[in-house]
Amino acid sequence: MKVYELKRAPNARRVRMFLAEKGVDMAYEQVDLSGGENLSPDFLAKNPAGRIPVLALDDGSYLSESVAICRYFEELYPDNNLFGTTPLERAQIEMWSRFIEFNLWQPAGMAFRHITGFYQDRETCFPEWGQECKLLTGQWFGKLEERLQASVYIAGDRFTIADILALCAIDFAARTLALHISDEQIALKRWYDAVSSRPSAQA
Amino acid sequence: MKVYELKRAPNARRVRMFLAEKGVDMAYEQVDLSGGENLSPDFLAKNPAGRIPVLALDDGSYLSESVAICRYFEELYPDNNLFGTTPLERAQIEMWSRFIEFNLWQPAGMAFRHITGFYQDRETCFPEWGQECKLLTGQWFGKLEERLQASVYIAGDRFTIADILALCAIDFAARTLALHISDEQIALKRWYDAVSSRPSAQA
Repeated sequence: MKVYELKRAPNARRVRMFLAEKGVDMAYEQVDLSGGENLSPDFLAKNPAGRIPVLALDDGSYLSESVAICRYFEELYPDNNLFGTTPLERAQIEMWSRFIEFNLWQPAGMAFRHITGFYQDRETCFPEWGQECKLLTGQWFGKLEERLQASVYIAGDRFTIADILALCAIDFAARTLALHISDEQIALKRWYDAVSSRPSAQA
Repeated sequence: MKVYELKRAPNARRVRMFLAEKGVDMAYEQVDLSGGENLSPDFLAKNPAGRIPVLALDDGSYLSESVAICRYFEELYPDNNLFGTTPLERAQIEMWSRFIEFNLWQPAGMAFRHITGFYQDRETCFPEWGQECKLLTGQWFGKLEERLQASVYIAGDRFTIADILALCAIDFAARTLALHISDEQIALKRWYDAVSSRPSAQA
């Protein structure tokens, strides 16, 4: 098996961090997103959406989408559970994962692309929409502060895939949008320090 | 148990269709989205994201996000499997579900909101971005045509949650954006006729 990725891309980091938590060794091959390698016919045959990460399976098929790849490895390696054990816990973790994806990660990604025009060779950018997305991203820092005042981790009392998604989104927002946890967001900062000090955060 | 929803909202339809496929009876309560009932403190206590559908559980807790709700019922009622049985099939169904959500449903939803200003009392709209989203939605009709030339259903050779997500998105795009399957998209039309004629499509 091998993962096609780009080391600095947040969705690729999700998979690396997840596999580090699981203790799974993996081979990686870098994809030149800036040069458009992900839009080549060869790559689109692996993933019709033209995105990384993509897992190449030993049978010659491919699996895309970071969370689908993580869930695949969760089921292959059930120790150190990160997706939940009971139907309700599994649903709650998925709910929080989706909250993070739709309200924190996606606005952050759109803000970056529309403000910087990073992919303006292949998409139409609207900087004002990017600024609005940056505002929306910042608002969810506040939602997470409220949540983490009541919960040790994002989805409950233990570390899960939802924390991986949130950490990757927050570090991306800090690096590309200069959005940072404020001094008043004490619970969010406590969570951030705990999660980012895990060895997997360096994967 | 009870589901808070809005009958005409596509994410609410996902849950109704899923429960109809599973043969699960459910009580529903309508939420006045246009009037902002979903942004009231009472509703935000149920779902901090302020969205429908929300499942009220018998223990007094709440579960949000359509796909998390569906997965919860999948695990409670494993007959007529819709999320996959093996680790690989489950990952493939999740991959296609995410393709549909991110590339078809989300652009369609943003197009509707930004073009019509439907929620302009509570969000800033950029009509040009809405038009771009409409273009992106239409492009994925073409991606689905390619996929369905090679596959009977979206995620493989049987009906799954991915087909529910796709049907809800396509019907929404037709109704609100006047985006329709073209005469040349024969495989997509074949799939659409098969899926929309299931009794659950009327739920």
